[in-house]
Amino acid sequence: MIAKFFPFLTWARTYQRTTLSNDLIAALVVTIMLIPQGMAYAMLAGLPPQAGLYGAMLPLILYALIGSSPALAVGPVAVIALMTATAAGNVADIGAPGFHLAALWIALLSGGMMLALGLLRLGFLANFLSHPVISGFITAAGLLIAASQLRHLLGADIRGKTLPEVIPSFFNNIHDLSLPTVLLSAVVLGFLLWSRTGLAKLLARVGLSGPLAKLLGKTALLIAVVVSTSLVWLLGLDQHGVAIVGAIPQGLPPLSIPELDLSLIQLLMAPALMIAIVGYVESMSIAQTLAAKKRQSIDPDRELIALGLSNLGAGVTNAMPVTGGLSRSIVNFDAGAATPAAGAMTAMMIALAVVALTPLMYYLPSATLAAIIIVAVISLLDFRALPRTWGYSRADGAAMAATMAVTLLIGVEQGLMAGVGLSLMLFLYRTSRPHMAVVGQVPGTEHFRNVARHAVITDPTVFSIRVDESLYFPNARALEDRITQALHDLPDLRHVVLQCTAVNYIDASALESLEAVNDRLKAAQVSFHLSEVKGPVMDQLERSHLVEKLTGSVFLTQFDAMQQLAPEVTRACMESPRCDTKLSTT
Amino acid sequence: MIAKFFPFLTWARTYQRTTLSNDLIAALVVTIMLIPQGMAYAMLAGLPPQAGLYGAMLPLILYALIGSSPALAVGPVAVIALMTATAAGNVADIGAPGFHLAALWIALLSGGMMLALGLLRLGFLANFLSHPVISGFITAAGLLIAASQLRHLLGADIRGKTLPEVIPSFFNNIHDLSLPTVLLSAVVLGFLLWSRTGLAKLLARVGLSGPLAKLLGKTALLIAVVVSTSLVWLLGLDQHGVAIVGAIPQGLPPLSIPELDLSLIQLLMAPALMIAIVGYVESMSIAQTLAAKKRQSIDPDRELIALGLSNLGAGVTNAMPVTGGLSRSIVNFDAGAATPAAGAMTAMMIALAVVALTPLMYYLPSATLAAIIIVAVISLLDFRALPRTWGYSRADGAAMAATMAVTLLIGVEQGLMAGVGLSLMLFLYRTSRPHMAVVGQVPGTEHFRNVARHAVITDPTVFSIRVDESLYFPNARALEDRITQALHDLPDLRHVVLQCTAVNYIDASALESLEAVNDRLKAAQVSFHLSEVKGPVMDQLERSHLVEKLTGSVFLTQFDAMQQLAPEVTRACMESPRCDTKLSTT
Repeated sequence: MIAKFFPFLTWARTYQRTTLSNDLIAALVVTIMLIPQGMAYAMLAGLPPQAGLYGAMLPLILYALIGSSPALAVGPVAVIALMTATAAGNVADIGAPGFHLAALWIALLSGGMMLALGLLRLGFLANFLSHPVISGFITAAGLLIAASQLRHLLGADIRGKTLPEVIPSFFNNIHDLSLPTVLLSAVVLGFLLWSRTGLAKLLARVGLSGPLAKLLGKTALLIAVVVSTSLVWLLGLDQHGVAIVGAIPQGLPPLSIPELDLSLIQLLMAPALMIAIVGYVESMSIAQTLAAKKRQSIDPDRELIALGLSNLGAGVTNAMPVTGGLSRSIVNFDAGAATPAAGAMTAMMIALAVVALTPLMYYLPSATLAAIIIVAVISLLDFRALPRTWGYSRADGAAMAATMAVTLLIGVEQGLMAGVGLSLMLFLYRTSRPHMAVVGQVPGTEHFRNVARHAVITDPTVFSIRVDESLYFPNARALEDRITQALHDLPDLRHVVLQCTAVNYIDASALESLEAVNDRLKAAQVSFHLSEVKGPVMDQLERSHLVEKLTGSVFLTQFDAMQQLAPEVTRACMESPRCDTKLSTT
Repeated sequence: MIAKFFPFLTWARTYQRTTLSNDLIAALVVTIMLIPQGMAYAMLAGLPPQAGLYGAMLPLILYALIGSSPALAVGPVAVIALMTATAAGNVADIGAPGFHLAALWIALLSGGMMLALGLLRLGFLANFLSHPVISGFITAAGLLIAASQLRHLLGADIRGKTLPEVIPSFFNNIHDLSLPTVLLSAVVLGFLLWSRTGLAKLLARVGLSGPLAKLLGKTALLIAVVVSTSLVWLLGLDQHGVAIVGAIPQGLPPLSIPELDLSLIQLLMAPALMIAIVGYVESMSIAQTLAAKKRQSIDPDRELIALGLSNLGAGVTNAMPVTGGLSRSIVNFDAGAATPAAGAMTAMMIALAVVALTPLMYYLPSATLAAIIIVAVISLLDFRALPRTWGYSRADGAAMAATMAVTLLIGVEQGLMAGVGLSLMLFLYRTSRPHMAVVGQVPGTEHFRNVARHAVITDPTVFSIRVDESLYFPNARALEDRITQALHDLPDLRHVVLQCTAVNYIDASALESLEAVNDRLKAAQVSFHLSEVKGPVMDQLERSHLVEKLTGSVFLTQFDAMQQLAPEVTRACMESPRCDTKLSTT
């Protein structure tokens, strides 16, 4: 029982020496990536570098205790950092004391929401975010992230949260760029881009291969940091316009609850919810992909709880919001992380670094961090997704295009809302038009098929309609409209039969609709019948007044209905030679 | 073609003397109700009485030209008046010049939205409003309307938009009530309540029956107005604390576009959308009910256009927002209105009254108007709907209860949003859990049925699953989770077969999900197959990369799949005696 809540009790019991060494190696590799990435994403979020490092400590330990994915590497990630910067930027200026306070409250609020959704088993709400929307959003966010780093890469004061802000700012300020910064950026960015494929090849050429080469291949970020920091220090580049990180407080973050400000909290509720959902969806997709490789399973609600606690942990340790990150999780998995303990070990190593190494990062240039962000963001961009999705389905393509356009032109939160709103609308549109078939009898049989597709026989006094979906509020009106239309079109109409073969459920709106149809047909002296109602649906209907008020009957089969309502046509049809000529093959 | 856009061209061509006299009588009866109701609903909306009368002029003429319902009586209605009061009250105080301006912009905005939704054929968006939500909302709004009239009925300064505001205000101000007002209210209210059944009985007793009696039965409102106005004038009650309507400008309203104020418009967008949707849904349900009685049909998108133009007309004539009203429409229908011309005639009669009769209304007491509102609102209250809906479906009952509680306690707009939000969430919850059945072969047959309900045979290396719904973003993850779970639960798993019998559509999210499932199964060395894919779905899938990337095959039938994937088990199963023992009868 306790083990169910704290999965670490399960794996801790069987923890062995080999597991330990696997976890230790994975933790080391992830730490080497996480120190520069953490500082870079903190810069992206508009926060001091330590916020990123702190985000790689307590949150990782909390995830290790509760989370269900052994390989998921929790910590600061680029998209969440951008969303944090936008949301906090709406309530305070970057650098102002209110800005970091807002970021802490975003972590606490989104953490609290994830925790609540997980405890209430409401993880399904993440389904609101359709795949085209999240995919379009992430590509657009990636572009905005890259644009936001131009400032650090070029040393010019280029600012703005959307393309219509960034582009004029670029042309207005590009003449102020700092040449040493541009040169440094070019070298670091070139090295990092080359290292993605070139470093492994080089190591193979010098005879290294296997785990050690893999480990060394991941040290590119570290090399970039060490070399560029040394260059700035040795050449005194900070005196020539190269921005540096500066002093980072040494030691562990204090545990403290941020100052309570209700009006601030109210403003941050909506962005915090979006950050919670985007963070959760991204993290779950990574965790499930990695789990499947080892035939492990991920519990969606437990993941919500674990990520929620991680963010609460971030909020009380002066850190930034966190979630599972793709690149570090893959590295963690490939390096052999066997249990969530790897995450906890990463946290310890980061803590050691914060205590011991921060003075060495004084001369670390912002341009290096920006280059690290750019390289990370390239893997987020997927421009081919839009034509691919559009080719597959216009509706999905439109939702994706709207998400991207609104995100780039108006803003991150608006883009996400536009995408969710549009995909819900398109979904509702589709659901509101259920497939309905007017049915007739196949000659020589007791079967009833769509009159539009088969050569079937009908009676002018009976209108038989089959709905191929459950009946609920989005589609209740469609059936109502269709029957009202038939009442108008068919002057000889005496009976309407609703064939419920595919109806698994009838909600209260659809029930009211059926009652309205019954009343309206009654006013026009037409009786209303049901046929082939499933057992559970019939049980439910009997709890309402529909069955007793029904002007017609409930028939076991469509054939029974027709035998009673149009006996002559039905008999003649049964006696005619059996034939089921399809009118169309679709 | 032109006749399609202007339906009056169709009926005007065949217009006859009997149609004319029917329409005239109906128009007269509706006018008699509409003059007091219009002023009453204007008072409810916090507007001067003429706003209600103007709302019964140009809007009715516009509806007559475009609308498709012959009997629908458009004009001011109680719920829309309350919603207008709330929305305008959020931007200005009642009586301030900005208040009426806000009401005019609400009419223009909701009219413009209806028009746009109608032209874009987006009427299906009204489906967002499920029946339990609208029904709970109207009962709660009715209570708030009644509470808002306590002020006029008692002559005490009782104010507030929600119960938590009204109730303390009631106890704080009740001692200030005006005795003459209370007595007058009691008499008028008593008379109106009695007239609902008593007047017809009385007329029958004095020997009157048939159309004339019916007509006289509808004059109760007029009698109440005339008698109470005369009483106030004769007894000088306005000098003793009885509030009166006062001077109403004589003559027709000027045609003018209200002052443009972009920040005001921005604040009114959301309430205008809600007013548009509630007005449309209410009006459509009345129009369809009346149309069915004569086997006529209503075009939903045309109705949106007609109501939209009516509200635009209201906005440019100093009127209040309008929609189809239930009580007057029924009277109109019963009095024999044969064409929309009846509405236009009503408008003319109202115009005559505004030109000639307004001086006579100077001494009309507000208490009479309040009593008229109370009587109209009683028919809106349906307290039994909540237990009835709850008994039928917990989810629908919860949505209704939430709508009512939030409307009464927090506010009208919040209540509607809470209801729509909750019913969408509950819908998404249900859709996100599609019915999925693990299937096995029925011995001696080629049929495959649910393993949980039938005694069927399965092979431990093959996991066959049937989804009884189309695959799209709300449910894509459920299938993904179920297959990931199976991968974890079944150590011998080699093949997964997805039986697509009930899948009519696969959207881009579900496609990504299937690709993810394919990749994850591949990583675990399990192949992924599809069976019984419908023609149109297969056509769509071929536009994606899924089929070529699929690690398994696409089988025509589930039996073909099993014959190839588990030939021995399948053959043995075919040879075993035919039997289809149900494990359960549900």
